[in-house]
Amino acid sequence: MTFPVAVRWSEDGAAVDLLDQTRLPEAEVRLRIETADAMAEAIRTLRVRGAPAIGIAAAMGVAVESARHVALPDAEFRARVRSAIERLAATRPTAVNLAWALERMRRRMDRAVGQTPQEVSWALFDEANAILVEDRGMCRRIGEWGLQVLPDGDVSVLTHCNAGALATGGIGTALAPVYLAHALGRRVRVYVGETRPLLQGSRITAWELGRAGIPVTVVADVVAATLMKQRRVDLVITGADRIAANGDVANKIGTYGLAVLARHHGIPFYVAAPVSTIDPDTETGDRIPIEERDGDEVRRGFGRLTAPENVPVYAPAFDVTPADLIDGIVTDQGGLSPPYGAAIRKALGLVPAPARAGGRSAT
Amino acid sequence: MTFPVAVRWSEDGAAVDLLDQTRLPEAEVRLRIETADAMAEAIRTLRVRGAPAIGIAAAMGVAVESARHVALPDAEFRARVRSAIERLAATRPTAVNLAWALERMRRRMDRAVGQTPQEVSWALFDEANAILVEDRGMCRRIGEWGLQVLPDGDVSVLTHCNAGALATGGIGTALAPVYLAHALGRRVRVYVGETRPLLQGSRITAWELGRAGIPVTVVADVVAATLMKQRRVDLVITGADRIAANGDVANKIGTYGLAVLARHHGIPFYVAAPVSTIDPDTETGDRIPIEERDGDEVRRGFGRLTAPENVPVYAPAFDVTPADLIDGIVTDQGGLSPPYGAAIRKALGLVPAPARAGGRSAT
Repeated sequence: MTFPVAVRWSEDGAAVDLLDQTRLPEAEVRLRIETADAMAEAIRTLRVRGAPAIGIAAAMGVAVESARHVALPDAEFRARVRSAIERLAATRPTAVNLAWALERMRRRMDRAVGQTPQEVSWALFDEANAILVEDRGMCRRIGEWGLQVLPDGDVSVLTHCNAGALATGGIGTALAPVYLAHALGRRVRVYVGETRPLLQGSRITAWELGRAGIPVTVVADVVAATLMKQRRVDLVITGADRIAANGDVANKIGTYGLAVLARHHGIPFYVAAPVSTIDPDTETGDRIPIEERDGDEVRRGFGRLTAPENVPVYAPAFDVTPADLIDGIVTDQGGLSPPYGAAIRKALGLVPAPARAGGRSAT
Repeated sequence: MTFPVAVRWSEDGAAVDLLDQTRLPEAEVRLRIETADAMAEAIRTLRVRGAPAIGIAAAMGVAVESARHVALPDAEFRARVRSAIERLAATRPTAVNLAWALERMRRRMDRAVGQTPQEVSWALFDEANAILVEDRGMCRRIGEWGLQVLPDGDVSVLTHCNAGALATGGIGTALAPVYLAHALGRRVRVYVGETRPLLQGSRITAWELGRAGIPVTVVADVVAATLMKQRRVDLVITGADRIAANGDVANKIGTYGLAVLARHHGIPFYVAAPVSTIDPDTETGDRIPIEERDGDEVRRGFGRLTAPENVPVYAPAFDVTPADLIDGIVTDQGGLSPPYGAAIRKALGLVPAPARAGGRSAT
């Protein structure tokens, strides 16, 4: 199975090799990232994007940063690494995988009591690599579970943004079932909306599927309703940036509208994401902080002014799709069906807090 | 009331003075159009757009073309004018006002039996000017009727594409109630989606409302669902390119999706258009021909490649909103309420064909 790689170790193993996704589809440019600050810049400017890929890249960024400080005394070394983790964590507030991956790195360092900075740095490389390798396996398992939601015969999938190989360490989340179905010789076709303002659909999803030889058609985002009315799509699958404990899903702005349209047309709407995307501490979607992007991404996203210079722009980066519009959540541990609260607690191995007199649970 | 003017006679009266809307918002360029072919090019490339403005511009284009041939023998003069009408009619297949305005011009010529080419040409200028002046009055009447659908107090309107002054000879259709409410001192705010692929919302609607001092916020089209969920908009008003006899509405791609989203959120969805937009010969929306635009408008609409060079693009220019998603149609002759079939027949002064044994009516 061929698929392009978003993030990997450099050949000498001392740096991170990133595909600069802001340059797609015009140019295929790879970056050598040697510091946490360079990685933070790459994450902030969306050179690497997609919740799982961001987590992997940030963890790898911590590892390469740690290698620069192994000559320092232990306390100062650890302070430098902790500071790098904090700077990386601040780059994208919505993606829960970022916090999750960085927390794993911090804990790995904290566990390495009595080890030298060099030993701790090696351990951080190990941990980042484990996150990368686990992510590849996670994508494959999502794909395998996701095959079950594809109807038999020729199938036409509508997706949004990019939840493909370039959003992960492997074959993606929303696109994982598509890659597997294609590899199994099934006729699968993808429609993708451009995904304004940053066009991850037309720039990235169309590029990676084209590379893999999977038929893909690009539409302006506003065409989705017509595609559904014309029955050109059999199902919708998107990724997720964060899933609340009740199954509400934060994902790229536009996802919520697709879910409403799918419901109106009787077309199933699925979300595909690793269990690590679920944030059990976020009770419902309205507790998810929604990042607002700079209005210039809309006003002058293409190097040309496409709206009057001073017109106000409202540019939320994400929206929240309520659980009741989602027909299933495909994870690396299997498919979750409504009611999601119970399914999610089971998937995370959580037991409901026992009812207590007079109040809320302590979680 | 200040509003920018899309189409008017040149100061010397011998040509048409068009605002080149493809240059907005970067530059305000006016074109001098002296032939039908130049006008056909301007219509085809969307330098002038919006159903009413296209009809006016085409009629004025016929008039200025006719003036070039007044020295020819009568039969040849008339053949030249008829040929110009045909070339103009072929530029945009969906807009019914175009065919309507050109048919008026053709009939005006046909009525002028026994007149010289010069007299016929003068009559054609008269007729085109009448279409322009009537359109201004039409806009104002739509605005007056439309005020009735605005709720009291501060009001926030979501619109799509541009059905404003720059789409007509006056203050627009969908935006006419907004202009009037603003002129009456009411606090009215407009949200507009960019309207991919050609960005008439962000380029044109935002520009003209900004010019008029009316608060406007631009959003990527995919933000509409979130605006509705957040109750930031009180109602949706769009224009129409063609209205079928049953009230189905063809309008800019994206309109149908907004209607579905509005219904889901319990937000009223209105269409504002002159009665001339109604095509009684089109029984239902699925009979309306839907123009497909060149995929490069999506792939490279901003001078930069935003999708892989060879990726297929599906780019319908319009969609059809079924009548049952429309809460009211505001026309220059009053508001139409469901069931639209009867309301439309009444507005057009049509009586239902008497039932006949054995079959469909002859219309």
